[in-house]
Amino acid sequence: MKDVAVIGIGMTKFGELWNKSIKDIFVEASLKAIDNAGVDHIDSMYVGAMSSGLFVGQEHIAAVMADYLGMGPVPSTHVESACASGGMAFRQAYLDVASGNSEIVLAAGVEKMNDGADATAVLATAADQEYEVYNGITFPGLYAMMANAHMHDFKTTPEQLAAVAVKNHHNGFNNPNAQFRSEITIDTVLNSTLVADPLHLLDCSPVTDGGAAVILCPLDMAKNFTDKAVKIIASTQASGTISLYERESFTSIKAVVKAAEKAYKQANLKPSDIDFAEVHDCFTISEIIVSEDLGFFNKGKGGFAVQEGKTSIETGEIPINTSGGLKSKGHPVGATGIAQVIELYEQLTEQAGKRQVKNAHIGMAQNMGGSGASCTINILEAL
Amino acid sequence: MKDVAVIGIGMTKFGELWNKSIKDIFVEASLKAIDNAGVDHIDSMYVGAMSSGLFVGQEHIAAVMADYLGMGPVPSTHVESACASGGMAFRQAYLDVASGNSEIVLAAGVEKMNDGADATAVLATAADQEYEVYNGITFPGLYAMMANAHMHDFKTTPEQLAAVAVKNHHNGFNNPNAQFRSEITIDTVLNSTLVADPLHLLDCSPVTDGGAAVILCPLDMAKNFTDKAVKIIASTQASGTISLYERESFTSIKAVVKAAEKAYKQANLKPSDIDFAEVHDCFTISEIIVSEDLGFFNKGKGGFAVQEGKTSIETGEIPINTSGGLKSKGHPVGATGIAQVIELYEQLTEQAGKRQVKNAHIGMAQNMGGSGASCTINILEAL
Repeated sequence: MKDVAVIGIGMTKFGELWNKSIKDIFVEASLKAIDNAGVDHIDSMYVGAMSSGLFVGQEHIAAVMADYLGMGPVPSTHVESACASGGMAFRQAYLDVASGNSEIVLAAGVEKMNDGADATAVLATAADQEYEVYNGITFPGLYAMMANAHMHDFKTTPEQLAAVAVKNHHNGFNNPNAQFRSEITIDTVLNSTLVADPLHLLDCSPVTDGGAAVILCPLDMAKNFTDKAVKIIASTQASGTISLYERESFTSIKAVVKAAEKAYKQANLKPSDIDFAEVHDCFTISEIIVSEDLGFFNKGKGGFAVQEGKTSIETGEIPINTSGGLKSKGHPVGATGIAQVIELYEQLTEQAGKRQVKNAHIGMAQNMGGSGASCTINILEAL
Repeated sequence: MKDVAVIGIGMTKFGELWNKSIKDIFVEASLKAIDNAGVDHIDSMYVGAMSSGLFVGQEHIAAVMADYLGMGPVPSTHVESACASGGMAFRQAYLDVASGNSEIVLAAGVEKMNDGADATAVLATAADQEYEVYNGITFPGLYAMMANAHMHDFKTTPEQLAAVAVKNHHNGFNNPNAQFRSEITIDTVLNSTLVADPLHLLDCSPVTDGGAAVILCPLDMAKNFTDKAVKIIASTQASGTISLYERESFTSIKAVVKAAEKAYKQANLKPSDIDFAEVHDCFTISEIIVSEDLGFFNKGKGGFAVQEGKTSIETGEIPINTSGGLKSKGHPVGATGIAQVIELYEQLTEQAGKRQVKNAHIGMAQNMGGSGASCTINILEAL
């Protein structure tokens, strides 16, 4: 398989984009990426979106977007894996280039969540409809159960959960594309509305509209277009149990563990080699669990690590969610996995401004679906 | 890129499967394919489904299916392109094997359309929501406009449209998995309820539940598992305009023409080299238009060709839809593209029983989404 590079990025501002349609959002992000990469055509495209059918009544979304982008007749493929749809689209684009089948490929994600649909109900379709959703569970409830288990087993505290939100809002304050650019405190989180005990409103990522896009090409072609290419050194994916009731543990996510094992093997790296990471903080507890499952901290120590500043840009050994994460940057579900890759690209090419991590050579993006039944991990390296 | 083979197949009966869930249907087809191929594991899987979100309230469908199939933690990816979702899933599986990334891959499609949802409204999400669906159009209406244009330009007759349905029901009569196993006549079609002039009820494919699955592996590994392998000699895809109003012509589908050009080039073949084909007959007019766009007949001659028996198993120079097609076999939209490949496999390995095409060495499957904004073409060759 060929080595593959990311050569350009583009995204919309994340937020409540009431005056833009899903097409507008997708096209804006994609044209920015095409322009940023300096390419004059694409050979194929992959579109990550969780549920354009339920959110805006539009399936066949990859063909729609190829048409509106003016890119027909290129092959355009929609990839869905709930909140991991963007990461999965990126991985299929990577395989398309790595195989030698295509050269210049657009991987883009989009979601238009604010358009009248009941977002909580739509998101719940990422859980098991027959055994979980039918009985009334929603995602705050699922992650609240995981949080309670983690607090029970490891003495993780509500203050530690809140520390994730405080850090990510701090990072997002310096991200011009973030939905929420406001510093918050532990007290702000703990005094916000209780959504599902122990998760408060500010422990939860928001409902967001947004689009994100990147351009991939063979590494040996990258210099034809840009001096700011970044190499993909691992792209892996795993699945796990869809429902919590099937799991041996609520405090570890098997798909994350498996995808990470494969990613470290593909890149020939260990966790301590990763300089910074974007991880899937749909709720504060998920950042803590995932930071343990990725091997950055021992199981049960993720909450303490955040509290001690080990994941902050300024003092951390492994800065996490330098973009602001899903929590502050926003979580347009299909776009999130691509936006994570964009943060890696900006950090690795030293374009992250006030969020810049010093000596950022290797970054990891971890994107997962539902309560973790699917996970994709991409590791990128500066050239 | 590596040569890739299909080494096993499995499908459910197509029809109204009221006592089976979408999971039951998917697992039944997939286990049959795994058993038929004689493999003891899979390395990854691709799931084609159009809209499990709108039909049964379940997104994240690839992770759900990996779990219920007992195949976690393998990577499992949902691919959607409306009614071409199955064919697109097959193509992504092909790329996964051809790239060398995976060896044994399951490509499966499923749709559970009979579960209370308004199937016509769900299917309409394959058209442009803002410019077509909002104004009231449904798919019978879109294809009726295409039929009227074809009748106007080329003197195609309602009897020629009906001849497609008669032929496909005749073929489906001999397919044990078909939804409708009943011979019909031209009069039966012309006397059936008018749905959208000139299309009668029996010009339209039905609403169907069903699943279909195949196993792919590198060609050089195929003999380890079976003496009934079939080689994939082309797998292509193209996109086009989503809405009819954007098109130069209603009587030709650009995505089909482009995907066919690429497929003939990849396989180094011309249309007359194809021994038989499964094409996307969601309506009788679509089989006629597509048979022209694939180069089997000159533009405008497709209706006459059917009427003259040129596409029948018994007398045809190019038998089309030997399985019964979407019209008689049924059209569980996400499964259709995979079911087409299954018919190719059965014909090329001489297991098609009373539907067997004599001297079948090369078969083509053409699967498209919506009114043709996406198309995938796969060409398979007997070994």
